[in-house]
Formats: sequence, C-alpha cells, structure tokens
Amino acid sequence: MVHPETVLAQIDQQFPQSLERLFELLRFPSVATDPAHYPDCLNAAGWLVTQLKGMGFEAGLRKTTGQPLVVGSYMPPGGGAGAPHILFYGHYDVQPADPLDLWTSDPFDPVIRKMENGKDAIFARGASDDKGQLMTFIEASRNWLAVHGSLPFRLTVMIEGDEEGDTTHLDLFLKENAKEFPVDAAFICDTEMWDERTPAIITRLRGCIGDEVTITGPRIDLHSGYFGGPAQNPIKVLSRVLAAIHDKNGRIAIPGFYDGVKPIPPSLRKQWDGLKFPAKKFLGNIGLSVPAGELGYSALEQMWARPTAEVNGIFGGYRGPGSKTVLPAEATAKLTFRLVEGQDPGKVRKAFRKFVKERLPKDCKASFKDDGGDSTGFAVAENTPWIAAAKRALKDEFGRNAVLAGGGYSIPVVDSFKTHLKIDSLLVGFGNEDDAAHSPNEKYAIDSYYRGIRTWTRIIAQFAEREET
Amino acid sequence: MVHPETVLAQIDQQFPQSLERLFELLRFPSVATDPAHYPDCLNAAGWLVTQLKGMGFEAGLRKTTGQPLVVGSYMPPGGGAGAPHILFYGHYDVQPADPLDLWTSDPFDPVIRKMENGKDAIFARGASDDKGQLMTFIEASRNWLAVHGSLPFRLTVMIEGDEEGDTTHLDLFLKENAKEFPVDAAFICDTEMWDERTPAIITRLRGCIGDEVTITGPRIDLHSGYFGGPAQNPIKVLSRVLAAIHDKNGRIAIPGFYDGVKPIPPSLRKQWDGLKFPAKKFLGNIGLSVPAGELGYSALEQMWARPTAEVNGIFGGYRGPGSKTVLPAEATAKLTFRLVEGQDPGKVRKAFRKFVKERLPKDCKASFKDDGGDSTGFAVAENTPWIAAAKRALKDEFGRNAVLAGGGYSIPVVDSFKTHLKIDSLLVGFGNEDDAAHSPNEKYAIDSYYRGIRTWTRIIAQFAEREET
Repeated sequence: MVHPETVLAQIDQQFPQSLERLFELLRFPSVATDPAHYPDCLNAAGWLVTQLKGMGFEAGLRKTTGQPLVVGSYMPPGGGAGAPHILFYGHYDVQPADPLDLWTSDPFDPVIRKMENGKDAIFARGASDDKGQLMTFIEASRNWLAVHGSLPFRLTVMIEGDEEGDTTHLDLFLKENAKEFPVDAAFICDTEMWDERTPAIITRLRGCIGDEVTITGPRIDLHSGYFGGPAQNPIKVLSRVLAAIHDKNGRIAIPGFYDGVKPIPPSLRKQWDGLKFPAKKFLGNIGLSVPAGELGYSALEQMWARPTAEVNGIFGGYRGPGSKTVLPAEATAKLTFRLVEGQDPGKVRKAFRKFVKERLPKDCKASFKDDGGDSTGFAVAENTPWIAAAKRALKDEFGRNAVLAGGGYSIPVVDSFKTHLKIDSLLVGFGNEDDAAHSPNEKYAIDSYYRGIRTWTRIIAQFAEREET
Repeated sequence: MVHPETVLAQIDQQFPQSLERLFELLRFPSVATDPAHYPDCLNAAGWLVTQLKGMGFEAGLRKTTGQPLVVGSYMPPGGGAGAPHILFYGHYDVQPADPLDLWTSDPFDPVIRKMENGKDAIFARGASDDKGQLMTFIEASRNWLAVHGSLPFRLTVMIEGDEEGDTTHLDLFLKENAKEFPVDAAFICDTEMWDERTPAIITRLRGCIGDEVTITGPRIDLHSGYFGGPAQNPIKVLSRVLAAIHDKNGRIAIPGFYDGVKPIPPSLRKQWDGLKFPAKKFLGNIGLSVPAGELGYSALEQMWARPTAEVNGIFGGYRGPGSKTVLPAEATAKLTFRLVEGQDPGKVRKAFRKFVKERLPKDCKASFKDDGGDSTGFAVAENTPWIAAAKRALKDEFGRNAVLAGGGYSIPVVDSFKTHLKIDSLLVGFGNEDDAAHSPNEKYAIDSYYRGIRTWTRIIAQFAEREET
C-alpha cells in the first residue's frame, strides 16, 4: 500500500519550483484565436512537451486542423498490464487579454498578489483557465514520479490549443485517431469548487446546439408609410415565433423537445436540496431576484437538469440612431438550446425548425443556419472507481465531502471523449467562482494550485492502493 | 372671365426656356444633409430667389435652424383685397446621389433620355423630387404673369432646404413666424399621379410617431450555459411584448390605440372600390401576395385609412458570425405607428408604453426613447374651392377625373401648416411611381413637367374666373 504522505511532503518542499514552472507557462501569450500569437502557442506547446519528456514521458506535438496538440504517454515499468489507462486533458490556449487597460498588471507577466479575502493568488491570463489547473495534475505526477519512480497507471496526457476557439479541431483529431487511445477514463481539470471550502465533482453537464433562423418577407426593405399595413413585417413574424417557444409556465412548447428527458431521481433531488444553493444571492449577483425558468423546478435544477431554449441574439431592420421608417425584408435570431441527458441534438434541431415553419404566415419564408454545437447532455454514473477515488481524495484534502454537482454549460471535449473514445470523464477542478476566467485580472488562488496538486496526488495514491490489494 | 388658352400657347412656345431653367436648378448638387454641399444649397436657394425676383416677387432667404428658406411674396395690383392668399410649398434640397456607380449619367448634369416606354424624361437627382415638381408651379406662374400681367391671388412661395433631412427646422420657423403668413391654403407639388394617365389629389395622409423601447434584465451579459434557465432573457421578453401588439386578426391590441379612429364614409369606400386598385400586382412587385394587415379591410384601406404599429428595427445580444452563448442584458426595438385622422400622437405613445410596462416580468425594466414624428393623420374636406379648382383643372388637362387618393406615408409639412398656419393643403403632383425618387437614375417625364405647368395654369385660371364672377 502506498501512502501519499511522502509525496505530499515532497510537494511542499518543491512548491516554489512548481510555482515557477506555472509562471513559465503563463508567460506564453498563447491566444490561439489570434493568428499573430501562433508562435506563442507553438512555444507554449513545445514547453509542455519538454516538461513531459523531462518526466520520462514519450511526448511530442500532433498535427490537427487547428493548433498543435500536445500528446505525452507514460507506460509504467513492465507495461502496466491490468492497470487502468488514464487520459488527462487540459488546454494551453487562453482567452484574449483585452481590454488590456482593465488589467492591474501585465496579463502575461504573472504576479502573486493578495485577493480581496487577504489570501495570495497568481494573477495572469490563463492562471485558472486552464494553465494553473492543468499544471496541478502535471506537478502531482511529477512529484509522485520523483518519490516512487512510477505511476500506478498508464497515462496519456493530451493538452490541446483550441479549447477557447473551435473545439471541432480536437473532435476531428479524436475521431480520426481514436484507435491510438484505448483509454479507460478521462481526467479533466477545468472546473470549479462548489465554494471556497467545498470541493466539487461535476457529474452532469448540459449539451448544446446552436441554430440561426432568418425570416424573409418582402423582397426588399420597404417604406413603412407606403406599405405599412398590407406588407408583411419579418420582425413581427420572428417575434411571434420566438414568443411561442415558451408557454406561460416557462415550459418549451416545441413538440418533441422533451423527448427522452427523464426527471432526476428523488435521491439526487434530495442531495441537491441539501446543498442549500443560495439562489437568491446567485441571482442577486446578476441583478435578478426570481428564477425565470420552468415553473416547479428550483434554480439549481433549472440549470443542471432542465433543457432550455435561449435567444442569444436578434437583429433586423434599422439599428442606427433615431428612427428610420423601414419595413425590413428580413429578421434573424440566433438561438442555443441547452440539452440534458436523453435528448438527441439532431432531433431537437429538426423539431425547432418544424416549429418555426409551421408558424410562418403566407409570403414569409424561413432559412436556417446550423450554428454548431451538437453536443449531448450527460450524467455520468456515480459508482465508478474514478468518482470513488476522487471523492475520497477530496474528502481527505478538504475535510469535507465533495459536492456531486451539475453544470448548466457544455464542455465539448467530454462529448468528444464519450463519442470517439467511449469513455466517461472525471471532472475535478480547483477554480473559484471569482477567478475571472475570460475577464481582466484573471487569477488562481495559491491555495487552489497547492491543494490541486495535493488532491491529484491523493487520487493517484488510490490507484496505487488498488494495484497492491 | 379668363381663358387659360393664351397662357397654354405661351407655355408651348416658352417650353425650351422652362426646361433650361429646370436644368439650371438641377445642376446644383443641393444635398442638404451633407455639410460639404452647404454652398450648393445656398446657390440653389439664391438661384430661386433670383427667379422669383425676376417674376416681380419680393424674395429673399430667411434664416432657419437648418438650411436657408426661400420666401417670395407676390401681391396683385391693388393689394388683392378679397382674393385668396395662397402659399405654394416645395423643397430645393435633394437626396444624396450615391451609389454613384449605379447612375447612367451624372446625377447633377441633367440629360433627356428615353424611358422604357419610349417617351422622353429628364434624368437627374431631384428631377422629380422635388425640383421638377416645384418648377411646374413656378413656370405656370411665370407664364401667367407674362400673358396677364398679374396673378388672381396673393401668393407666398416657400421653398425649403430640409425636406430630406430634419423637417423640424421648417416646423420651428413656421411656429415662430406664423403671423407673417396669414394664408388661406397651401398648394404642394410633391406627390404622384394615380397612374401614368390618371391624375390624383391626395386628400388624406397618415401621421407618424416613432418610439424606441429597450428591455433590460440581468445587469450584464451572461453565459447561457451557467445561467440559462433561471436568468431572464430580455430578447424573449421583448419578443413576447412585440408579439402581443397585434391580435390574430392583425388588429392592434394596445388599449386605447383606436380611440378617435372613425370608419371611412360608405361613399368614400365605394369611390375607393371603384379605383380597382391592383393589390395583387402592387404586392407582387414587392414579393408578396396577400395583404397582411387588419382582416376585413382592403389593401388600399389598410394603407390609406387604418393606423399601424410597425417594428422598424430590432437588436439585442450577439449579432456576429456563428454562435455566442450569451444571455443579453438588454434588447431594443424601434417602432413607428402610422396614425389616421382622430388619433392623438401623444396618447398613442403613452398607451404603447403602458402596454409594454404591463407585460414586463419581474426583474425586467423598460426604457423608452422618443424617436420623434408626432404628426397626426389627416383627411381634408373635399368641398373646398382648392379641391374643386384642382379637380376641374386636372379633368381638363388629362381628360380623366382625378382620383381623390390617400397616402399611407406622412408629409410633415402638411401637419406644420395645419398646426401653425391653421390651413389645409392641396396636394397635387405629376410624378410617376417609377420616377426613382431617392434612388439612382431619378427621372421626371417631360410629359410630367409639361402637363404639370399646364395644370397649375388651369388652376390659376379658375381663381381668375372666380375673381370676375
């Protein structure tokens, strides 16, 4: 049996070096969506390859249709027969840093500063999303290897460069190279804690599809004086369609939309109720006071377990200052549907388009554009060895049970892993709600980094135990 | 009694000069909305002053808050006691000419070319709107004066320079200087014929108000994954409000909206039915096939005698390419309401705003912006001496009865004359539907110009008759 204590002591002793390595990674302005930063992305990826090689991994860059993908693979001595094969996933690309003038310090020159709560944090673009988080696993592995000489599982590390941009690049890579990765589970470190003191494992996420509808009426923009009355107005038609999507209870009225959606088990609802989610405070933070979703569901359930239809953008006609008396030839809305386990993205898209077409008056047409997404919602089984290991490790590290939480958002790579590699993902992360990922002054608490490394060490330890029992 | 025949003969003989004068006016690129053309506007106005002075008028430029206003006044010998005082209105400013590359010839170098029907027309910016039209009256007066030495009424000519821009400049001028203009009626030449062979007098126009509503919900744009479900979406709220404005029969459901609206008299409906308005062809031209307005009204009545609520523009959330999973903090719609006689613009605006506010869910607010307009709809009495004179003159010139037509649009100056000078307007024009006012290759048929001059001459003749009976 392997105790993590020796490794934890080693982590303490080596923490300044772990920090310095994270700082090195943070200094690459690896903004993948900006072509000017392509060399920086390449350098960040190359740096990761060097790190993995230094830890004894076979590592290199793989070509994708997007940024290069860092792939490192580790084989325990003797080939690790019978040991699980773990895929660790993270991403080295970061969000653009602008607006730059809102940053207190250079986004690509990390510094340690006090947060509002008086504790230290690393301030830099990517500090929490995802460089700090991915490094918790790398540093845990490094320290474990330093102490024990080997990891208790086969390991593939996959660090992509397109997470903030076009996630279809990695999806395509996985589809085309699935056979190379006969893995048993994916570990992903890109999520948050439940709160500052309580860890979380994300066990359900919503999927997402995007669709765009354009309603056309008159063949050209018309003068509303000459033609107002007899002429169709596509904005009015679009408004009517959008207004019909929800009934007065906030339920989506598109026939077939809820096909396959199952209510959450009573035990899970009980568990969620036990979280005492502060809906009022949560909504208060964004300037709202009451949950506006489906009647009869808590805010948490509306976010974690119920699908939605949202209009993300709308435009048509005159949008400049003042007034222009035009009857527009067309109007467009961009929608996304958040999906839960059991819903078929393709069927939802079809049902929506049918719903629109059935509501068109004479002389109006609708055209649609697939805005992508097409990820399904999922809920992972909670009785897997990975969840069990993470639960125990988090309890040991934080002294509190991890919340088995949902997320209303989508992590497309989870869907790609499920589809192409046929595996579930374990989502454990150490970010905090106020980390300002995607915003100026992004940070990652020193505590997040430190405890993150320790937690992964404890998770690794359990596989070492499993190996020897 | 005065026969117009001598003057008509004079018009024929002088027509080349009348054309040359119109060409001179057309050569000024008097685009008032472009500050670079301010000198051209000034020159156009100055040229008109010179013409009026040459005809024996007292004339000059008056300062307004916008472009200078040409004012000329004519007093018959002996002071014209007992004679009516007519105000003739036109505008010397023109629409911008761009896109220039769509013009077959220089927009400010008028040429005579064949139209599609084989007849000649003058091609230039402003040829029909409004330089050609206003010159029909000027040339009629000039020829009348040349033959008879005096006009049978007092006359004020008012040619403004802000008709295509901000019409509030003239409104303010009239408000502040109303006492200077104790006139009996306004003659306006800025409208079209019923069709190529049938003249028209416009006896009713709709008014217009513009209002803009912005619905706000969350205090910032939100991630639709994290917040989708419990968070309010202002686009959805706005869509619901807009969808509620019309009932399923196309009737406007805003309480109080129809206050003061009277059905048109059966005799007028019969008259309009007699016009056999080709609704199918009219709608076909704009890519539509059925009238989309209030059930139970013909397309013509929907345009001429029924008020509307139109959304001219809408915007909110993400409007770039592809998808962005945002729940927007706000959404905006720009509306105009076309009003008919009897409706109070202020009350309609209030009723609309109340209607919106009553439909706001918790956590949403609405703010409004007055987009101006505030003109009332009107229907003139059809038994006035001006209408009678115009009817007879048009019948004599065209050999057909003039259609007493409505217009769905607004001519703000009609409202200004009504409000500040307490007079009705006689709207007679000789434009054709395909004159491309506001578009490239604007034209005015030679026939329009010629018959326009002759028609005004016949109208003048009738006041001379009246004087002598």
